[in-house]
Amino acid sequence: MRSEAPKSKNITWHFGKVTRDDRAKMKGHKGVTLWLTGLSGSGKSTISRALEEALSGRGVHTYVLDGDNIRHHLNRDLGFTPADRTENIRRIGEVARLMTDAGLVVITAFISPYRADRERARSIQKPGDFLEVHLDVDVATCESRDPKGLYARARSGEIQNFTGISAPYEAPEAPEIRLSTGEMTPEVCAEQVIAYLEAEGYLG
Amino acid sequence: MRSEAPKSKNITWHFGKVTRDDRAKMKGHKGVTLWLTGLSGSGKSTISRALEEALSGRGVHTYVLDGDNIRHHLNRDLGFTPADRTENIRRIGEVARLMTDAGLVVITAFISPYRADRERARSIQKPGDFLEVHLDVDVATCESRDPKGLYARARSGEIQNFTGISAPYEAPEAPEIRLSTGEMTPEVCAEQVIAYLEAEGYLG
Repeated sequence: MRSEAPKSKNITWHFGKVTRDDRAKMKGHKGVTLWLTGLSGSGKSTISRALEEALSGRGVHTYVLDGDNIRHHLNRDLGFTPADRTENIRRIGEVARLMTDAGLVVITAFISPYRADRERARSIQKPGDFLEVHLDVDVATCESRDPKGLYARARSGEIQNFTGISAPYEAPEAPEIRLSTGEMTPEVCAEQVIAYLEAEGYLG
Repeated sequence: MRSEAPKSKNITWHFGKVTRDDRAKMKGHKGVTLWLTGLSGSGKSTISRALEEALSGRGVHTYVLDGDNIRHHLNRDLGFTPADRTENIRRIGEVARLMTDAGLVVITAFISPYRADRERARSIQKPGDFLEVHLDVDVATCESRDPKGLYARARSGEIQNFTGISAPYEAPEAPEIRLSTGEMTPEVCAEQVIAYLEAEGYLG
């Protein structure tokens, strides 16, 4: 059947690829990555959900990447060695890039303690597609919260290489958004991020 | 400031997580993965773009995962050994799962020659979230197209382990959709997939 099949059509028939602009038009807003970074207990999980809910309420298409949907799935082969931590953040950065390209407002909620790892996640995206959101609160406050009892286990030595206790946290030097999560409610934090997105024209 | 900060609010303030249903309602359709599989030259790239365009024209939120946006990015660390090929498909399956959960109609366009790899990509998704689309056309037809000259290089031995020539292609036994891409135009193929999605209630 070779000679009869419409082969040339399959090869030469070019489709107008759906563009970023097309997607933004359909969704009514731009795609962007909101890269949350902060210590354990700084509020990443709570604020990511507050943001997701507030944005969804405004008709914004969102998705949260966090430990729940990454560590036991895409990154299940990775442990906690320095190389594995870097690879963990690398892959999350790549997935965030894809989802941003798909037009979503992607919210990532990982400690991501190393500046170089975050800079790489930024560098693979187009300018303006990656916004660093620093959940800025001191270790003492996070430790006093300690919702999962992790700081206690880190202090006792049961958990090693714990960010802020026995491993470094390299705070962002120039994040697009800084949230003082020790002093503001999650609602106020979410409002502050949304105000930024509005002011910068992300929400159309 | 520890005692003055509204810490307990941060811990106990629970947000209604945005659900799959919420996302489907906002988008007007369900999220689903359309997993295209077929030989080199079977039309994966052309049909994925035809599908993307046709679905977007109907207001469906889509995204195509293909070699262009995966191989040199998320999976840039992987080569073409059997283990790396399996890991390649594993990660693509995980990204497709996340994007489907985000409510998108995800179209993946990879040869994905091994049944076990495709079955794993299916197994990590909820029932109905993964639809296998077999681009069913014989090697001779694909070889006669050979748009990138790959078959010629495989025949000469320049490329080894080439699917269909020197490496196996395990055709799906019970794909949800089978497209005879040797006999149908890309437009007709896209229409057939959309007819399936409509009949099965994916498009709302």
